Amino acid sequence: MLPSLRIFSLALLLSIATRATLASDPLPSWNDGPVKRAILAFAEQAADPASPKHIPVADRIAVFDNDGTLWPENPIPFQLAFVIDELKRRLPENPAWKENPLVTAAVEGRMESILAGGTQALIELLDLTHADVATEEFDRRVRDWLKSANHPRFDRRYDTLGYAPMRELLDYLRSRGFKTYIVSGGGQDFMRVWAESVYGIPPEWVIGSYARTEYALIDGKPTLTKRPGVEFIDDKAGKPVAIDRFIGRRPVAAFGNSDGDKAMLEWTTVGRPNTLGVIVHHTDDTREYAYDSAPKSTGKLIEALKDAPARGWHVIDIKQDWNRVFRSGP
Amino acid sequence: MLPSLRIFSLALLLSIATRATLASDPLPSWNDGPVKRAILAFAEQAADPASPKHIPVADRIAVFDNDGTLWPENPIPFQLAFVIDELKRRLPENPAWKENPLVTAAVEGRMESILAGGTQALIELLDLTHADVATEEFDRRVRDWLKSANHPRFDRRYDTLGYAPMRELLDYLRSRGFKTYIVSGGGQDFMRVWAESVYGIPPEWVIGSYARTEYALIDGKPTLTKRPGVEFIDDKAGKPVAIDRFIGRRPVAAFGNSDGDKAMLEWTTVGRPNTLGVIVHHTDDTREYAYDSAPKSTGKLIEALKDAPARGWHVIDIKQDWNRVFRSGP
Repeated sequence: MLPSLRIFSLALLLSIATRATLASDPLPSWNDGPVKRAILAFAEQAADPASPKHIPVADRIAVFDNDGTLWPENPIPFQLAFVIDELKRRLPENPAWKENPLVTAAVEGRMESILAGGTQALIELLDLTHADVATEEFDRRVRDWLKSANHPRFDRRYDTLGYAPMRELLDYLRSRGFKTYIVSGGGQDFMRVWAESVYGIPPEWVIGSYARTEYALIDGKPTLTKRPGVEFIDDKAGKPVAIDRFIGRRPVAAFGNSDGDKAMLEWTTVGRPNTLGVIVHHTDDTREYAYDSAPKSTGKLIEALKDAPARGWHVIDIKQDWNRVFRSGP
Repeated sequence: MLPSLRIFSLALLLSIATRATLASDPLPSWNDGPVKRAILAFAEQAADPASPKHIPVADRIAVFDNDGTLWPENPIPFQLAFVIDELKRRLPENPAWKENPLVTAAVEGRMESILAGGTQALIELLDLTHADVATEEFDRRVRDWLKSANHPRFDRRYDTLGYAPMRELLDYLRSRGFKTYIVSGGGQDFMRVWAESVYGIPPEWVIGSYARTEYALIDGKPTLTKRPGVEFIDDKAGKPVAIDRFIGRRPVAAFGNSDGDKAMLEWTTVGRPNTLGVIVHHTDDTREYAYDSAPKSTGKLIEALKDAPARGWHVIDIKQDWNRVFRSGP
């Protein structure tokens, strides 16, 4: 490319980013910087039929991890907080649970005992609180919990803790014709209850881990009942599998925050021009948490961060890149 | 309701149906009759914000079985024709297959031997032709097959055999804001290759049976490989399960043709006002097939047909209700 042409392209790119920033900034909670500029340039070009980097609207698919990407995962993942509150609420009607050391650890808040049991311990607690219940009744329980439970540090409802910059990003991408899917290790049924109000993401765009369900006519009423055991874990190498199974196309943009999202970032970007990979790096202990190099529960970010430069993945430094983390306060 | 008011409502209903029919009939391959009128009234009212039977656009979800509902399933399901052609094509490079009596039966066209083996025999043949292959390569094989294979009776490409009345119906429902999903016992990956060109249905609205896939970086390239065995069979009680898993909302309209669709029709309509259930009844041996009371392979329609009157499900009599079956000829 001639030097003058190269300067022209750079100027064009900058002008696209600047215009979007100055005119009416769709991402006001984001500080100006390379990540914000990369996102704006990518989405504006994707939506612009005259751009060489235009993406047909059918292919404008963006996938987002949830815990640690769209809302916090500390001090424990919010779904685990739901599990513990449900165990407490239903303990009186389930006296046998008192003999279960895992349940006792959970209701007494001894998280280290639960986490020491690994995935198996978590699945046992999930079975007690997520299984043998009709899907409609489960949804009701999640809704009731959201109304009553507060986050221990921020002292506000969990469903007010979606990251403000990410909600702006979701709205912005949708305004540019993108479908915004959640692809999360969290429970699909749990997330679908609130994803629409918190993120504007409808149930059919929420993909997560799931258990078996069973259909039957019960007293003449069509009923789906959630059963114990995990049928599919939507994490790590499971994420590209889930994307293929549920969407059937490769996304052009992926957003994650941990090594659990590395495969999804690869599947979206590696060997494919005109794609976007972004990692949320938790660096802000004052406004949120700084934990990802040594997390207590989930959210380890080592391998994906190491791969980021060579893969061309952008890294959001929360401290630097976001001028606010939540919608109001803390 | 006052008699005069009741007459007024009836007149309104008829006028809606008639107006749609006369002005520019969105369903020209459908003869005037109770099924066509019921479909038109349902969709027009769903889309009309002033109607008491208005349905919010987010809930306008219609689910369609595929084999026998959107295209034929005779003399054998088309995916089985693909399996047999693939076995023939790849036999020279797989000499061991010649020792396999199932493969021999398939390539010699002895269908009764395969069908006698039931689901297990079909899965064995599916594994040979659908497994241990990258998803992209599998898609290419299906595309190549569609270009080369012809239906034995109609002597034309399989992907020209979508029912013309159903394609009109799909287009019409989408024009009224409906999302049109396929929910089929057929292979999800197989259907996604051609569903968009044949029915205007994008991959993310195609739900079917599926096998396990595995993600890995192979020679630095992100790869999904299809593995043997069926992970999920999207038939009978599996259909409501799949609808809940993939869509996360209950549909308001369901279209099927066999007892395999009964649970899906129930899940959509039973106990829920303002829903639509429709069964395609194969009655036309001249233009298509009349087989569903005693099918050779799939497509038995006994229980669902028996339930139809009490459930309020409409039954399409192909001979009566469709003035043409395919787009041109046969």
